Amino acid sequence: MSKREIYNFSPGPAALPKEVVLKVKQELADYAGLGYSILEMSHRSKTFVKIIEDCKRKLLNFLNLASGYHVLFFQGGATTEFFRVAYNLLGAGKTADYLETGVWVKKAIQEANNVSQVKVVASSKDEGFSYIPPLDGVEFSPEAEYIYLCSNNTVVGTQYKTFPKPHHGNYLVGDFTSDILSRECDLKDFGVIFAGAQKNLGPAGLVVVILRDDVLKKCRTDISGINSYLTMQEQNSLYNTAPVFQIYFMNLVLDWLEEQGGVKNISKTNAQKASMLYDVIDEHDLFVPTASREHRSLMNVTFKIAREDLTDLFVREAEEVGLVNLKGHRLVGGIRVSNYNAMPLSGIEKLCDFMKKFSQKN
Amino acid sequence: MSKREIYNFSPGPAALPKEVVLKVKQELADYAGLGYSILEMSHRSKTFVKIIEDCKRKLLNFLNLASGYHVLFFQGGATTEFFRVAYNLLGAGKTADYLETGVWVKKAIQEANNVSQVKVVASSKDEGFSYIPPLDGVEFSPEAEYIYLCSNNTVVGTQYKTFPKPHHGNYLVGDFTSDILSRECDLKDFGVIFAGAQKNLGPAGLVVVILRDDVLKKCRTDISGINSYLTMQEQNSLYNTAPVFQIYFMNLVLDWLEEQGGVKNISKTNAQKASMLYDVIDEHDLFVPTASREHRSLMNVTFKIAREDLTDLFVREAEEVGLVNLKGHRLVGGIRVSNYNAMPLSGIEKLCDFMKKFSQKN
Repeated sequence: MSKREIYNFSPGPAALPKEVVLKVKQELADYAGLGYSILEMSHRSKTFVKIIEDCKRKLLNFLNLASGYHVLFFQGGATTEFFRVAYNLLGAGKTADYLETGVWVKKAIQEANNVSQVKVVASSKDEGFSYIPPLDGVEFSPEAEYIYLCSNNTVVGTQYKTFPKPHHGNYLVGDFTSDILSRECDLKDFGVIFAGAQKNLGPAGLVVVILRDDVLKKCRTDISGINSYLTMQEQNSLYNTAPVFQIYFMNLVLDWLEEQGGVKNISKTNAQKASMLYDVIDEHDLFVPTASREHRSLMNVTFKIAREDLTDLFVREAEEVGLVNLKGHRLVGGIRVSNYNAMPLSGIEKLCDFMKKFSQKN
Repeated sequence: MSKREIYNFSPGPAALPKEVVLKVKQELADYAGLGYSILEMSHRSKTFVKIIEDCKRKLLNFLNLASGYHVLFFQGGATTEFFRVAYNLLGAGKTADYLETGVWVKKAIQEANNVSQVKVVASSKDEGFSYIPPLDGVEFSPEAEYIYLCSNNTVVGTQYKTFPKPHHGNYLVGDFTSDILSRECDLKDFGVIFAGAQKNLGPAGLVVVILRDDVLKKCRTDISGINSYLTMQEQNSLYNTAPVFQIYFMNLVLDWLEEQGGVKNISKTNAQKASMLYDVIDEHDLFVPTASREHRSLMNVTFKIAREDLTDLFVREAEEVGLVNLKGHRLVGGIRVSNYNAMPLSGIEKLCDFMKKFSQKN
């Protein structure tokens, strides 16, 4: 390890719990006394099938969805689910409503339009995606199969505080890549929840899909194989070689989350960390918040430096004291602080101190 | 590490070079002195972009395809490429010829038929895929966009010794998942080569696609996003979050291969290891080879125990001396010895000794 403590604020692949990284390191060459690495383990071995089952059960328990839901493990990131959700639930003739709140939803719309024509019913594009469109003004389509949203938008740093209500028998589809397991919320209106692993669940290379039982039954049966949710569910996510290492790692992250007191406790810590940062931003004119106040993300705290020419200096001086990867997304600029579950309070405290000093000096 | 040496003959995820596993372990918590893990590194960081470039260059050099080819990194395994190859190169109205030599090609045909109707021009299904159909008897279709084959068939253990010649301006598409970089062969007739990583390249969770320049230019432009080869090539495989760990690992495996003397040297060792095994099989009546002699795979050596009731005993007694994961594929039964690049000669020697003793005793 480096001599000084490093805090990695990367938006994703993001910092992982240190304890988990060290455990993985410790057992990397010999898993459970078998004499070989988890990296070399068959996805059909009893040992791994137990890991997959444990991981599914823990995830559903944490989300309060223990009954009536299915967990599928895929590769290809949330981006591949942008395609697969539409491929399985739409197909020719069917449509869906999309709430456009950032670049990730834009990409989801693009992928869905490769399958069927979907409708953008609300957008915050007019103000650079800096807010979540008010839901009571939205005209949802009666014929929409589902309503699609992205719970937390990493680029500008906005987050839904409440979710729309489904209507006409449809359901919500949610991309929770960047805030799954970070806060308590009622997810019962969601028919599909998916999340790339590389923020709150584990390393990049895994995406988790949670399907409500009635929605699984609505999936197309005229497609088959690797892109079919029905095939993957029937095969317990082992239709093809699973990303063994990523699922093993995620399972350890869920154990770690349990040790932190579960979602209930970590959501309090996350709120506390975010609020410390927003307080510093609000109290210093040098820092200009990027997202609208009522939709501020607890996961990605974004701001600009009032004197923009100081942005690079901020990033550089932060790096010098071990606060790394703070540069904002290339589409927005400024600073982005990623504050996922694995970011310890001490990292945010150190960053707040740095910000105050930086403001004094400049 | 366990006290005794374990040899892992798993067909995939398969044994990885021990030296690489130990190096990864050693640097897992702190990559290159940055103070955090490679698992936490942004796929857009300079450090990682250099890894990706190195990995591409080394792979093409090893394959003698240094000029006029593109390497793309995807997730989802070879199975996802079964779909993507057809999705990018066929589309409505176009067709292709498939050489059906096992379950993996069957799956590839199924995925391609989700996109367009393809034609099975030869099959060894009649004899349980125990041979490669003779190529001179095949009636290829003049209208076929490509000819599809699987270079090495892991289940029964067959392998192409020569490849068909393209005609009418078409090209070969090859699934090289289980024998890439294991033998010297001329790949210039292939327009697309793909390989899941989990045999000869690294851990599961990565698939490499190599596109010849003229074939890349033939890819559909009316599709976009994560399933588009053109999009992925334009974005240097960073259209979405890449599986950073897997690519990093593969890059180290390529360094290791260089240290072994490259493909030239390892192909000799692989041939030697396979020949030792086939000799023992041929010299003992207790062992009955599964694949036809002229198509025997150098990567997956398969056989049955003449007295089938001894199969479980063979597997169990082998395990007791540290020779693990020898059970044949569930569709075939018997014994399968996976003999990929990372399997040391000492493992095969020990297995041959065990087989001889087992034959004497039973």
